[in-house]
Amino acid sequence: MAKTVLFSNYTIVTPHQEGPVTISENAFCVVSGKKITYVGTDKDEAERNASKNGEGDYYTYEGKNKILCPTFANAHGHTPMSIFRNIADDFSLQNWLFGEIIPREDRMISDDFYYGNLLTLAEMIEGGTGCVANMYDGAFEICKGSLESGFRIQQTVMGKKCQDGVWSVDKAGVEEFLDYLKTNDSEGLLKPSLLVHSIYLYPEDFYSPLNELALEYKIPVSVHISETLTELENCEKSYGCSPVKKLDSFGMLTDTTVAAHCVHLSEEDRAILSQRKVWVAHNPSSNMKLASGMANMVAMQKDGIRLCLGTDGAASNNNQDMFMEMRLASFMAKGTTLDPTVLKAEDVFTMATRNGYQACGFYDAGVIEEGMLADLQIIDYDCPQMWPLGNPLSALIYSCGPKCVESTMINGQFVMFKHELKTIDLEKVKAETAKTMQRLK
Amino acid sequence: MAKTVLFSNYTIVTPHQEGPVTISENAFCVVSGKKITYVGTDKDEAERNASKNGEGDYYTYEGKNKILCPTFANAHGHTPMSIFRNIADDFSLQNWLFGEIIPREDRMISDDFYYGNLLTLAEMIEGGTGCVANMYDGAFEICKGSLESGFRIQQTVMGKKCQDGVWSVDKAGVEEFLDYLKTNDSEGLLKPSLLVHSIYLYPEDFYSPLNELALEYKIPVSVHISETLTELENCEKSYGCSPVKKLDSFGMLTDTTVAAHCVHLSEEDRAILSQRKVWVAHNPSSNMKLASGMANMVAMQKDGIRLCLGTDGAASNNNQDMFMEMRLASFMAKGTTLDPTVLKAEDVFTMATRNGYQACGFYDAGVIEEGMLADLQIIDYDCPQMWPLGNPLSALIYSCGPKCVESTMINGQFVMFKHELKTIDLEKVKAETAKTMQRLK
Repeated sequence: MAKTVLFSNYTIVTPHQEGPVTISENAFCVVSGKKITYVGTDKDEAERNASKNGEGDYYTYEGKNKILCPTFANAHGHTPMSIFRNIADDFSLQNWLFGEIIPREDRMISDDFYYGNLLTLAEMIEGGTGCVANMYDGAFEICKGSLESGFRIQQTVMGKKCQDGVWSVDKAGVEEFLDYLKTNDSEGLLKPSLLVHSIYLYPEDFYSPLNELALEYKIPVSVHISETLTELENCEKSYGCSPVKKLDSFGMLTDTTVAAHCVHLSEEDRAILSQRKVWVAHNPSSNMKLASGMANMVAMQKDGIRLCLGTDGAASNNNQDMFMEMRLASFMAKGTTLDPTVLKAEDVFTMATRNGYQACGFYDAGVIEEGMLADLQIIDYDCPQMWPLGNPLSALIYSCGPKCVESTMINGQFVMFKHELKTIDLEKVKAETAKTMQRLK
Repeated sequence: MAKTVLFSNYTIVTPHQEGPVTISENAFCVVSGKKITYVGTDKDEAERNASKNGEGDYYTYEGKNKILCPTFANAHGHTPMSIFRNIADDFSLQNWLFGEIIPREDRMISDDFYYGNLLTLAEMIEGGTGCVANMYDGAFEICKGSLESGFRIQQTVMGKKCQDGVWSVDKAGVEEFLDYLKTNDSEGLLKPSLLVHSIYLYPEDFYSPLNELALEYKIPVSVHISETLTELENCEKSYGCSPVKKLDSFGMLTDTTVAAHCVHLSEEDRAILSQRKVWVAHNPSSNMKLASGMANMVAMQKDGIRLCLGTDGAASNNNQDMFMEMRLASFMAKGTTLDPTVLKAEDVFTMATRNGYQACGFYDAGVIEEGMLADLQIIDYDCPQMWPLGNPLSALIYSCGPKCVESTMINGQFVMFKHELKTIDLEKVKAETAKTMQRLK
């Protein structure tokens, strides 16, 4: 396919770097190479731009009954966990994590990370997601697969190693990962982050050295915070303060930190997260399914906390559907406050797109503007579930689903084109992950 | 296509008339005419049954990587409301209903009921739903379309008419509708119910005559109960008791009544609903979206109330996805009680299938057993979102969605076969409903 694409005559729905979400009817968008080179309603101008950038050669993708919008950036995933899908449901988080998941994770081999990740990326692509903040071991296998499939990812590096039963900070491991990115990521698809699982998994003296590592290599910290009441209570018992305060005491909360969950926060916690400009990744499905609780998104929004959205892993959700998370975030906020005007379609759409990309470190994606990276999805609303369209923004949040995603483009490349995955060998991935689930039974 | 179908080598997941949901691997099911004539794991027996019932002629539908389960019965819909989709979101129920919806409904013409209903039926069929308890005016237009599309429906009749600005009970109207059903419904697809909107819409002296009508013609009552705090407070003010108690005082709550919402109930209300064996239709999406509140399903379940699930109309949801409602019912119960073991996959699946059918008056559907009506859906789990399958029941609730529904059969007829609608002219329906939305803007 030509390297330049003219999206012709679409309803374009997009957040912006500044200002509200806009809806443009009969609009055009040109993508050349990795970037958006034109957005507007002038057909002639769009065609000239496509022709110039494509040196006469471009593909025209017609937009009748179609919406063009940014792909989603899933701000909290554990991509290889698709291999644990639907095997331990209706369990408490503690029993689920320590009884069902971790014992299986301990038996994972290199290929499990690679194929599990690819299966999740395939699902994400089919559901209009183009980027994920991924918290998991197996960084090299995951990045290899992500590069092969053209998927954008902020991937954690462990930053620690175990020798003779003793854990220590792994400076060499971090350097090796950063070197890998430098050598292999010529397309600019990958960003690193440092995995700091939570305040409850490591000994206290481990956090400061980890944070120094993050500072030295300028890597964002990726952490779970206040997911459950148990975590909160244990932290109060051990440290006499909340997880937010304790992590903040190590200097771990900054404007690059992605803090997943944040279900149980005090007013003081929220003030800290707001001041530090931490990205809070809300995971409504996972939090409800594991009965962790319902995060107070309305209070966080009022306090000016930077909000984004995640699915969490497929083992606790049990899919990777950002449409579901947008809808559920809005529903949960409305249902818990008894105010139907809170967390509107516009808010959750911005969280799932622009904010998610920024949380992953991609400030040049997640909005449809000239000069931005071309991470785009095409929604076909010519179907009963989205007909008649009504307000296109409402339709995206309250009616749409993965079924309506026709094509997904990341970094200017179609990774799904008219419902066909272009970069992942799905049959191979399915065969391998089915074997893995069987082996880890 | 042959009138007899052999579903060969499926994973069959089904509730039963008695006992728990079962999962059968490598199972077979034969449908002949309207009914299921064989279910089991004996291939030879299945083939003999198909051959005998089909008089040598039957179609074999292979089940590799497929689940066969009952279609859903949506226990609370307003099918023509798809024409108001995505036009009034993030509003309160009062402003939404009285400011946005009712003024438009007042301008509806006969065709709007007909085409709006068909659009919703198309969406339901695509999402694996085979039956709906439909509360709306336009009974004749709706039933006409439902018969044409082979869809199973419990349809309300108004039971009242307006002459010179005065409302009165419309005995003749009810009789006319019952005659229509007798004359036109040779396939047994339709059942009547009496529309009693709520305790807040009619004058007090209207309820007893309406109930007498229901009793005289043996028609179930279809009613909204305690959807919002406003309804509850106004009822307390007007009548000094709850909507449940007031409606019960008219004798309106029986074992055929379908009571939608029931968000705000006292312990006494729950005891009444349980004693009267009322069907409570839970609508999690609508209740959260309109910020009506979150029904206490766990308490209702403990009190032995008969529970089923609905989507409500497309104007307040904004789609008709029963997978979403099953998941959300479970999530809401878990999230509000902080107990992840409540309202399990099995519970919400039974609510959405067997219980929904029974609530609609079809006690001979909603389970896959010999002799039952063949209302069935085929789920294709050969896709990233449901792979690897894990527990098939968990997968149906927590991973599946309309995208995975391959075929839908109602009353032994494929209304969708391999993703193609067989009984609805979708292009015509879309053109008409788009015009309607425009006209009612």
